[in-house]
Amino acid sequence: MLRCVLANRKLDLPPGVLQPREAVLRMAPYSPPTGGRAGKLRLDFNENTVGASPNVIEYLREHLSADGLAVYPEYGEIKQELAGFFAVEPDDFILTNGTDEAIQVLVNTYIDDGGEVLLLRPSYAMYRFYAEVAGASIREIPYRAQKLAFPLEELLDAIRPSTRAILIANPNNPTGTGTSRAGIERILEKATNAAVLIDEAYYEFSGISALPLLNDYPNLFVSRTFSKVYGMAAMRLGCLFSQSGNVEFLHKAQSPYSVNTVATLAAHAAIQDRAYIEKYVTEVLAARELLYVGLEKLGIPYYESNANFVLFEAGKRAIPVRDELRRRGVLVRDRSYEIAGCVRVTVGTRDQIRRFLGELEQLW
Amino acid sequence: MLRCVLANRKLDLPPGVLQPREAVLRMAPYSPPTGGRAGKLRLDFNENTVGASPNVIEYLREHLSADGLAVYPEYGEIKQELAGFFAVEPDDFILTNGTDEAIQVLVNTYIDDGGEVLLLRPSYAMYRFYAEVAGASIREIPYRAQKLAFPLEELLDAIRPSTRAILIANPNNPTGTGTSRAGIERILEKATNAAVLIDEAYYEFSGISALPLLNDYPNLFVSRTFSKVYGMAAMRLGCLFSQSGNVEFLHKAQSPYSVNTVATLAAHAAIQDRAYIEKYVTEVLAARELLYVGLEKLGIPYYESNANFVLFEAGKRAIPVRDELRRRGVLVRDRSYEIAGCVRVTVGTRDQIRRFLGELEQLW
Repeated sequence: MLRCVLANRKLDLPPGVLQPREAVLRMAPYSPPTGGRAGKLRLDFNENTVGASPNVIEYLREHLSADGLAVYPEYGEIKQELAGFFAVEPDDFILTNGTDEAIQVLVNTYIDDGGEVLLLRPSYAMYRFYAEVAGASIREIPYRAQKLAFPLEELLDAIRPSTRAILIANPNNPTGTGTSRAGIERILEKATNAAVLIDEAYYEFSGISALPLLNDYPNLFVSRTFSKVYGMAAMRLGCLFSQSGNVEFLHKAQSPYSVNTVATLAAHAAIQDRAYIEKYVTEVLAARELLYVGLEKLGIPYYESNANFVLFEAGKRAIPVRDELRRRGVLVRDRSYEIAGCVRVTVGTRDQIRRFLGELEQLW
Repeated sequence: MLRCVLANRKLDLPPGVLQPREAVLRMAPYSPPTGGRAGKLRLDFNENTVGASPNVIEYLREHLSADGLAVYPEYGEIKQELAGFFAVEPDDFILTNGTDEAIQVLVNTYIDDGGEVLLLRPSYAMYRFYAEVAGASIREIPYRAQKLAFPLEELLDAIRPSTRAILIANPNNPTGTGTSRAGIERILEKATNAAVLIDEAYYEFSGISALPLLNDYPNLFVSRTFSKVYGMAAMRLGCLFSQSGNVEFLHKAQSPYSVNTVATLAAHAAIQDRAYIEKYVTEVLAARELLYVGLEKLGIPYYESNANFVLFEAGKRAIPVRDELRRRGVLVRDRSYEIAGCVRVTVGTRDQIRRFLGELEQLW
């Protein structure tokens, strides 16, 4: 349908199609495969595999009203509550429509056309996505081949005075690896002209956070999400933290009602039930050990992870293995286009990992 | 806190604040006053003043589950259903996080830094907002002083080959006025290089839509929302329609999960209950007549509207009138910063308008 020869800027659009921006023409379509997941064991999107706290559903059933749905969202109360929960001030963060909007707002606030953005590779696809939409000049630093380790020295070497943003997931998806708080401080100390985003979507599994550094570094931005351990991916809620002087500008670049009211109600209930989250994290960490042992028994190499997912090496069989697992009702993600031969499996409960290992053993 | 002298680009930021983009520095903060509305008669945001259909709440209570909340949104089924409802194909639109995201995606798809965007003035604030974030070159055409009529000839005169987008609400907020389908066709025929957005947030009250023109004009984009007559502002759901060749590019410039699952469940239930919407529209149109009569009795000039809100002239008393109404439990919006002396009142039910008129009479 579309042929795009970049060298000579020849762009053949079908007749009658309105010419989009060149940045958009160049972008690869991003269409994550999310249809038909119902009824399967969903180890493909790093979600909470048992669901949100039952308290969340109970609270929503009680508090949803036809009148309430008609009213534009109000964020005052939930911001107070979340500030208490995260031990920051209400002026130190914005609510976002998932982490995706956090990335978008940060990029829109700091990245002009041609502005330099540093990313690590492979990483969460949306960093590149929003940087491309903004017309950024993107440089990528690869994770180390050895254990897919965080390339701290390489990243530090790449930082220049012209670097305007550095977007990092810690721990990273899909590698599962990360850096220490000291590593983050070294980045923050060098990249003084850049907005440094530490995306902590998987923080609860690693226990390493940059949030306590917030008051020390005016170039630090931290994002958190309710889509992973909290089991609320359907609701789209995240938070983007920085010093209040920066948050003022983030707020200016954000549309006023991007987070829906039901997500704020759900978050209110979710943060009351810390025990549920702690129990789930404990279960996942135990299941991850079980997964390592199971993979070793099968002689399948894997990468140790600080998050609720693990990459294992299926070699040339990565896609057939994914497809065969799907036929057996178990969903995993092929990542071989990023890391040769690798498949990513989300760690759920021990029972779920036993089922996964059982199916894998049969087809291996 | 922030001084911004544009003439000589002098920008004094507080120490330790990271320098944002100049486009963001220049923007005025947009903070709609949405706190503390509970328990008051909300005639300030053009919402459905009685709430969503009870079927929506019933459906949500039945279909929300802790497991379902944990799963990333899937849009296949609801897109099929909405395509049927709007009499288009599923490839002819994207779901959006309210109309706000429709505007944002359109701007991100077509407007490069410095790209020319035409707006009408006054109009919905988010057109200017997203155009400014994108660094667009904005030209504004004022509504006519006489009856705040749609400035069709003036807009046609302003269109140039370099015009890349025209963002129009029809009917317009806050004027309540609009143009005919023939007027829209004249714009589409002249602005062949531009993405022409017809924002039909208030369509159900005017009955005039550009949607049937979709197949005829590859530069036409139409947005609809569930935030107004459907009583679902809390949920954040809209649709952006265009020919499928354009939608392919809109899709590329949109993040994959911007609409939450609960909104899609609510939409499924909402479109089953057409009778509820028709009844509410009939009620609002009757209440609008009642409002006109009441304002005339009080000798208060107003502008005739094609939507569920009406501007009336309070002169120098605009802000005091708004404040006094608030003290009496009735919320309206001051628009005197846009149209001298004007206050906007949302039209709800006849009972609600009787209450509004009663309070207004006492303080007038």
